[in-house]
Amino acid sequence: MVWFENNFTKALNIKYPIIQAPMASAASIELAAAVSNAGALGSLGLGYHKIENILPDYHKILAKTNHSINLNFMTHKEPNKNDIKAKKYMDEVKKYFEEYNITEIPKLVNTTETFNKEHLDLLLKMNPKVVSFHFGLPDENYIKSIKNQNIYIISSATTVEEAKILESSGADAIIAQGYEAGGHRGTFASTYKEGEIGLFSLLPQIVDATSLPIIAAGGIANGKGIAAAMMLGAEGVQLGTAFLSCPEASVHPLWQKALSDSSSRETRITSAFTGRPARGIVNRLIKDMENKNDIIPDFPTVGSIIKPLANIAADHGDDDFLSLWAGQSAPMNRNITSKELIELLVEETSTALNNFYKT
Amino acid sequence: MVWFENNFTKALNIKYPIIQAPMASAASIELAAAVSNAGALGSLGLGYHKIENILPDYHKILAKTNHSINLNFMTHKEPNKNDIKAKKYMDEVKKYFEEYNITEIPKLVNTTETFNKEHLDLLLKMNPKVVSFHFGLPDENYIKSIKNQNIYIISSATTVEEAKILESSGADAIIAQGYEAGGHRGTFASTYKEGEIGLFSLLPQIVDATSLPIIAAGGIANGKGIAAAMMLGAEGVQLGTAFLSCPEASVHPLWQKALSDSSSRETRITSAFTGRPARGIVNRLIKDMENKNDIIPDFPTVGSIIKPLANIAADHGDDDFLSLWAGQSAPMNRNITSKELIELLVEETSTALNNFYKT
Repeated sequence: MVWFENNFTKALNIKYPIIQAPMASAASIELAAAVSNAGALGSLGLGYHKIENILPDYHKILAKTNHSINLNFMTHKEPNKNDIKAKKYMDEVKKYFEEYNITEIPKLVNTTETFNKEHLDLLLKMNPKVVSFHFGLPDENYIKSIKNQNIYIISSATTVEEAKILESSGADAIIAQGYEAGGHRGTFASTYKEGEIGLFSLLPQIVDATSLPIIAAGGIANGKGIAAAMMLGAEGVQLGTAFLSCPEASVHPLWQKALSDSSSRETRITSAFTGRPARGIVNRLIKDMENKNDIIPDFPTVGSIIKPLANIAADHGDDDFLSLWAGQSAPMNRNITSKELIELLVEETSTALNNFYKT
Repeated sequence: MVWFENNFTKALNIKYPIIQAPMASAASIELAAAVSNAGALGSLGLGYHKIENILPDYHKILAKTNHSINLNFMTHKEPNKNDIKAKKYMDEVKKYFEEYNITEIPKLVNTTETFNKEHLDLLLKMNPKVVSFHFGLPDENYIKSIKNQNIYIISSATTVEEAKILESSGADAIIAQGYEAGGHRGTFASTYKEGEIGLFSLLPQIVDATSLPIIAAGGIANGKGIAAAMMLGAEGVQLGTAFLSCPEASVHPLWQKALSDSSSRETRITSAFTGRPARGIVNRLIKDMENKNDIIPDFPTVGSIIKPLANIAADHGDDDFLSLWAGQSAPMNRNITSKELIELLVEETSTALNNFYKT
């Protein structure tokens, strides 16, 4: 069996079972299109998009590729308004703004809506080959509409329990998101602690517990990693961090520098940037907020404070408040185009698998 | 290339590059001998042994096998005596003893010596094929003596930095211990947080950073896992948890039950049992001590309080204070003999690797 020909690639009409992670805001239209044109599956993260920008951006992608594309949405719970927590949090972060002589601290507001009826209508109109959801699946009626239109549905699990829920709720494939992964933990039904399982443990257990194609994510940076995931039963892989060093990605220069320096900079899971646990390269905000989870306002509201602060600091050359999302394999990143990366991944995977071929 | 024939197996004169983890107190003489007789490398953990029991136990193994054996020692720093901490800790745990109507709480003493001159002399006298050290390597003069006698030296790294230190300090092979692993973290030069790296990320980075044979550990429970480790560049694997369900292991029935129930019981890294971070199945002590690391006396002294308490509670049928060491793949355990396990692992590994053979 050739490793890249399986039910998953057939269902998605792609050549290689490699998904570029959606990475809302970092994965550009150019990146997604280039990845799909290279034979893998490009993804566009729409989680932070304003409703009115979704359709225009999708059309921009269609102008660049006629291959399968994955559109990604976030399915978080709406944030609770908690004035006491908000007050404590504002008191805590005020000092940062003062350092940059900013007297007016931004308001704590919800800038990102969870997947709703408007999103659904747009999705059905765009009718992509694939849709993926982060933080669980949307309402079952929504799922029914999406399935009626034969859009392939993917979502992430961080525990075996979550994988079973996704399978019984209508997912067509499941991403097993290992503890190593950069960015937001997809955890939606287990506790965050329970969801911190290394890919070596999580992947084979999810493969055993469900009958859907499983996509491995977290810590995969090269073809050896892809070959290893295949050995553990994956039918596909999703790489995020590896694509952040491609010129097509939309990554702040300070983030890019942090990725380059990642062999000497630890990554850690933190809720400091958005109110939900996500893995990034350790900087000042992560350290300062280490034991202060109880005062961090709900996802995604806290971003309305931290993003402006991060931009102001970044303009001064400081990465102190930037969300430097990265997985634990960030030190393995290579600075090549996404087309070169896909070609290299395919070649490396074949080489790794060939190493032990019988003679 | 046949996967089980490499420099590592040749150097150790073993058939299969599979090490049974030493697991002091749980890995019995019977287990180690059976594993070695089955073609893999059995290990005897001597970390908690009284000096006078080391030689007799080694002779018992020699009576059961003439294959290569690995002897394992602990190389921790001697504990600091901290009376204030000890006082706070005793106040904290007093309530547990009261529950069992024990009025006299055991004293806080150091029951386990780090690898010292006496151990060295014994080691040179026993002259095993392999010695492994946990928590780093011993003094460089000791290493010199061991190398002079051509005993193969192995130690664990939890970061790339630690792997480089081991290589430059005289190790012959390095265990890349992933975050998934059960029992004590081998971390010795990095912070414990830095050392929490999933095997998918840690293994290929250590393979790239050093030129020694790398042994993968953490979350490997079957042949698919071994095949995956090989893809990532490992020349050997070390399994611990998988052997705990073998009848030859010396595991308390309540621990055995916890392993059987592990698909519904989370594992977590805790310092509660010994004063050093180790992964075990969550029970009452782990939960109670969650945010109290600062009052836990240094490794291994706290064990002199917790072990007696664990035994008393266990006699009442409670696993509340038992160290239920287990890795994140514990739910994949199989209740078969160690000989059957080795045979199955070898067969599964070959099957996994054959899956993608070219036709």
